[in-house]
Amino acid sequence: MYPYNYLFDFTKNVFMKMGCSEHDSTIIAEVFLAAELRGHASHGMIRIKDYYQLWKSDRINTDPHVRIVHESPSTAVVDGDNAVGMVAARRSMEIAIEKAKNAGTGWVSTRNSNHFGIAGYYSMMALEHDMIGICLTNANPLVAPTFSISRMMGTNPIAVAIPAMKQPPFIADFATTPIARGKLAVAEKKGEKVPFGFVQDKDGQPSDDPEILKRGGSMLTLGGDRIHGSHKGYCLSSIVDIFCAVFSGANFGPFVPPSVAYLPVLDKKVGEGTGHFFGAMRIDAFQPAEEFKLKMDEWISTFRAAKPVKDQKCVLIPGDPERESTERIMREGIDIIPAIKDDLVEIAGELNIKFN
Amino acid sequence: MYPYNYLFDFTKNVFMKMGCSEHDSTIIAEVFLAAELRGHASHGMIRIKDYYQLWKSDRINTDPHVRIVHESPSTAVVDGDNAVGMVAARRSMEIAIEKAKNAGTGWVSTRNSNHFGIAGYYSMMALEHDMIGICLTNANPLVAPTFSISRMMGTNPIAVAIPAMKQPPFIADFATTPIARGKLAVAEKKGEKVPFGFVQDKDGQPSDDPEILKRGGSMLTLGGDRIHGSHKGYCLSSIVDIFCAVFSGANFGPFVPPSVAYLPVLDKKVGEGTGHFFGAMRIDAFQPAEEFKLKMDEWISTFRAAKPVKDQKCVLIPGDPERESTERIMREGIDIIPAIKDDLVEIAGELNIKFN
Repeated sequence: MYPYNYLFDFTKNVFMKMGCSEHDSTIIAEVFLAAELRGHASHGMIRIKDYYQLWKSDRINTDPHVRIVHESPSTAVVDGDNAVGMVAARRSMEIAIEKAKNAGTGWVSTRNSNHFGIAGYYSMMALEHDMIGICLTNANPLVAPTFSISRMMGTNPIAVAIPAMKQPPFIADFATTPIARGKLAVAEKKGEKVPFGFVQDKDGQPSDDPEILKRGGSMLTLGGDRIHGSHKGYCLSSIVDIFCAVFSGANFGPFVPPSVAYLPVLDKKVGEGTGHFFGAMRIDAFQPAEEFKLKMDEWISTFRAAKPVKDQKCVLIPGDPERESTERIMREGIDIIPAIKDDLVEIAGELNIKFN
Repeated sequence: MYPYNYLFDFTKNVFMKMGCSEHDSTIIAEVFLAAELRGHASHGMIRIKDYYQLWKSDRINTDPHVRIVHESPSTAVVDGDNAVGMVAARRSMEIAIEKAKNAGTGWVSTRNSNHFGIAGYYSMMALEHDMIGICLTNANPLVAPTFSISRMMGTNPIAVAIPAMKQPPFIADFATTPIARGKLAVAEKKGEKVPFGFVQDKDGQPSDDPEILKRGGSMLTLGGDRIHGSHKGYCLSSIVDIFCAVFSGANFGPFVPPSVAYLPVLDKKVGEGTGHFFGAMRIDAFQPAEEFKLKMDEWISTFRAAKPVKDQKCVLIPGDPERESTERIMREGIDIIPAIKDDLVEIAGELNIKFN
């Protein structure tokens, strides 16, 4: 088990060695560690290698000039200058929050960025300002639309953070697919099958094989099949893609660039880099903040008091599992499996820093 | 088969007889008929009786003063004054569009309203202004959150309309449940079972009985069960509820009032009436409108060209089925089944107008 601070300092040092400023490296480390704390290790330390290799392949800019290229009172388009995703994303959400201070709401679409870690982190930035935070991103194409066998979309997540008063905030952060990509990788490593409804084979037949993506298969959208509403997951994923990429001028759908260096740069571009979308809504643009937050307390306690199914202790509020995970991990430390540790030791060696 | 104009004039007359202004009655008729045209008859002529009976029970205000009660440059809260939902909703979306003209985007949360027909109608109002339109509403509680057997939420739909240039617009309009409530009613009338994953019984056991809601059962959220991501449908439905009701001061979750007079007014209120949420986003607050719309053409043709599964002609774009339905129905007319016709004849008789 590693303490939070050890991994934070290590991550920060890795990115500083790659040429990122101390300011940027601090942000990047914060987002990586937020993923670990919230129990989404698939977006945590395991991904440092991907960023490191993108940098070694000269496919990411560690000294970017992230800037507004278009704006209105409540909106902006940001060019991320091919930055590490966290850097472009954090700055974009700051701009959304600034816009909201003046216009009531702020909406930023960001192009020319890269994989930014967990969407929830950016949505949560709004909370301390008594705002609702929203964050969307598109991602590498792995998912087929309803009725298709082509990989056209990423797992395109949606994150929404809503403050309450005495209750902890409502924090939803979910892929628009039944499961995140990382869950397939876990099943694959364990040699387990997955339930039907997650993936299909290259001909569109139902599959329970987590390795099917390697053989032309694709992930399915939330809903699973047409009868159970997969077209609604497809709608959601499309809306995320359009807000992130068509609004900003990033690559959409099948043209989103890979977030790993072992996949080649795509032949065709329809925009610049990966796209994100950020929203900040001042609560008091709708209701006095205190009134709203008291009402959210009532909303949360009403839903928490819903009658649970047998054998289930209680109904959860979005954000509950991640908060429990954070408390546990801050107490117990972060577990790094041997294969990931080996990667980090190797990176440390190459950068002439320490990891043990 | 009834021609569009006949049903439009009839509907308008019904609401004028109920005391609505000609302006309001025209809007109401337009939304009812839009539901029929788009193939969502469950929100069309079949519902006129519900509104008529609410009016007879003095539970709806046909001479409302719909007004802004709070605002910022990009936001407003609207009080619907217990209007017929269409009247409060149309005015709210107009306000969102006005706000967007000045601030780039406009966001309106509406309280003290009623059932407003199809969400898609209001989102589509933005298209002619070269804006993206968004519409959400909460609704009578029929749906259980993940791990619960309590009916806490409505089918809380999401509608998003996005303009294109030569391609028809992208129009998504979907409940955050695997199916809309109306589909259960259809199966019930036909005496058919429904697939597992739509509803559960009063103990939370899977059920294929479309009548299970009458025996304490509940609808499930998009995803169906926890393994297949029902908690993501629960997140979506919750976000819709909070944006519609907590932002506006309407009733949330289990306290949303019934949209039919045969169900009693609820004992407990936590706000005023039903809540909606509307968004309008100027395209040129992000990109020159022409550039954006050309890019949407490219997005749409890219997705339309995705490889279909065997036996499927092509991949659909959100809005395709409704557009085909509209063209067919404008040509062939609107089918009214005998039971609905009987209701309309009876209402016509009571109001001293004609229907045959």
